[in-house]
Amino acid sequence: MKTIKDIVIIGSGNVATNLALNLVSKNYNVKFVFSPNLEHAKKLADQIGSSFSNQTKDIPYSDLYFIAIKDDAILPFVKAWNPESSAFVAHTSGSFQTDLLTPYLNAPASFYPLQTFTKDTPIQLKNVPILIEGNDEQFIQLEVIGDALSEKVQRIDAKKRKALHIAAVSVNNFTNYLLAKTKIYCQKNDLDFELLSPLLKQTIEKCTSSSEPLSIQTGPARRGDKLVIKEHLEILNNTPELKKIYDTFSNLILQEFQKNEL
Amino acid sequence: MKTIKDIVIIGSGNVATNLALNLVSKNYNVKFVFSPNLEHAKKLADQIGSSFSNQTKDIPYSDLYFIAIKDDAILPFVKAWNPESSAFVAHTSGSFQTDLLTPYLNAPASFYPLQTFTKDTPIQLKNVPILIEGNDEQFIQLEVIGDALSEKVQRIDAKKRKALHIAAVSVNNFTNYLLAKTKIYCQKNDLDFELLSPLLKQTIEKCTSSSEPLSIQTGPARRGDKLVIKEHLEILNNTPELKKIYDTFSNLILQEFQKNEL
Repeated sequence: MKTIKDIVIIGSGNVATNLALNLVSKNYNVKFVFSPNLEHAKKLADQIGSSFSNQTKDIPYSDLYFIAIKDDAILPFVKAWNPESSAFVAHTSGSFQTDLLTPYLNAPASFYPLQTFTKDTPIQLKNVPILIEGNDEQFIQLEVIGDALSEKVQRIDAKKRKALHIAAVSVNNFTNYLLAKTKIYCQKNDLDFELLSPLLKQTIEKCTSSSEPLSIQTGPARRGDKLVIKEHLEILNNTPELKKIYDTFSNLILQEFQKNEL
Repeated sequence: MKTIKDIVIIGSGNVATNLALNLVSKNYNVKFVFSPNLEHAKKLADQIGSSFSNQTKDIPYSDLYFIAIKDDAILPFVKAWNPESSAFVAHTSGSFQTDLLTPYLNAPASFYPLQTFTKDTPIQLKNVPILIEGNDEQFIQLEVIGDALSEKVQRIDAKKRKALHIAAVSVNNFTNYLLAKTKIYCQKNDLDFELLSPLLKQTIEKCTSSSEPLSIQTGPARRGDKLVIKEHLEILNNTPELKKIYDTFSNLILQEFQKNEL
């Protein structure tokens, strides 16, 4: 089995930047950055001391290629690039269906760091789970890299990876939106969102440590207190997004516990 | 102005228990516990060394009464109790409308600890914001008690308290339900929810520290990736509650960012 010596990064966004910086910090040779946006490619390449281009024809041969671009750009990119079908290519997406690449690659793989990233504040991957999809040989090769970056490397199949991505969307994207809208609501009402920090902290702690977090559900909907719910919805008339969220959750929680109490 | 020497607790649930234990730990004399459930009243009374009863006629005169029962039980309780109209009564609810008590009391007040409580694992109120509603004299008296229990005591008016309660429902009840349903989904798919812990932690940290958490929104809906959203919704057909949540948030986020990008 071949040892991975050099790596090409396709992409220059949040995941690409965090992955490239972590690889370089563990002495992997990231020799080239491709991005359709030349300025972004240059910026990342400068950070890690690699070459770069926005032309697929410039992409050099490499032991491994990480594709860290947004989902709907992956397939068009691979078509345009037209790599050797034996190339070792792993995308980093949580939701992209890996086998869509089989018309172009003998054995496409995936190397999915389960975290939310920003370019501007790169983080160490040490505590970030890395989920690997691939054949046995690829798994062993990617596991070596994964283990160098993170303490939480697991093999995962396509179906489970998709389920995990849905869970991640829920935990990250929806939680962020819910809290963002609540923060804006607080600002509108001249309330310091900081007041809610201990409550939020306790909520997360209880919910993650409880084996059945539904059993610790509280609040007006849990109590079946429809008068309070109605009043809150009226107050929220001027903030339609939070009203929609309030309405959806309250109905779900009402149904959940009425059902259980029948 | 009268100094508060003894206190009666109405209620024996999560808030009543946490409040009573914290008061006693600061050497307040909680002399009596009332609860319609005699067994619960006895249990709390035994913990704090007080008398107890499930009969309103047994409630003794006290410098202060805290009503810590569920919202829709407050008014019926006060009617049944029929206290001296000069009694110093503060309820602990985030949402109960204090002035509903004015037919029975000259000056009803509120002492609202903003946290989620459970009886079985009582917590110190030190970092829990306590929001006080009342006239000037009551505020000063309740502030003394609040300051003994917590470092975060604030005066609040009825309107703001209601807004804060809505925000608290969102931060606590809805977040808990969202994460609970996600956890159940992970269990069904044989995935360890622990894998998502670093992501959840980072999400909360970013969201609370960002002055505009909408600006750090990511995910399929943020990208306008309708194909991924459609696929996820199909996968979620067997988990209708999470599907409803996924659908609601995705539509809201799609609208939010399409709107901004027009």
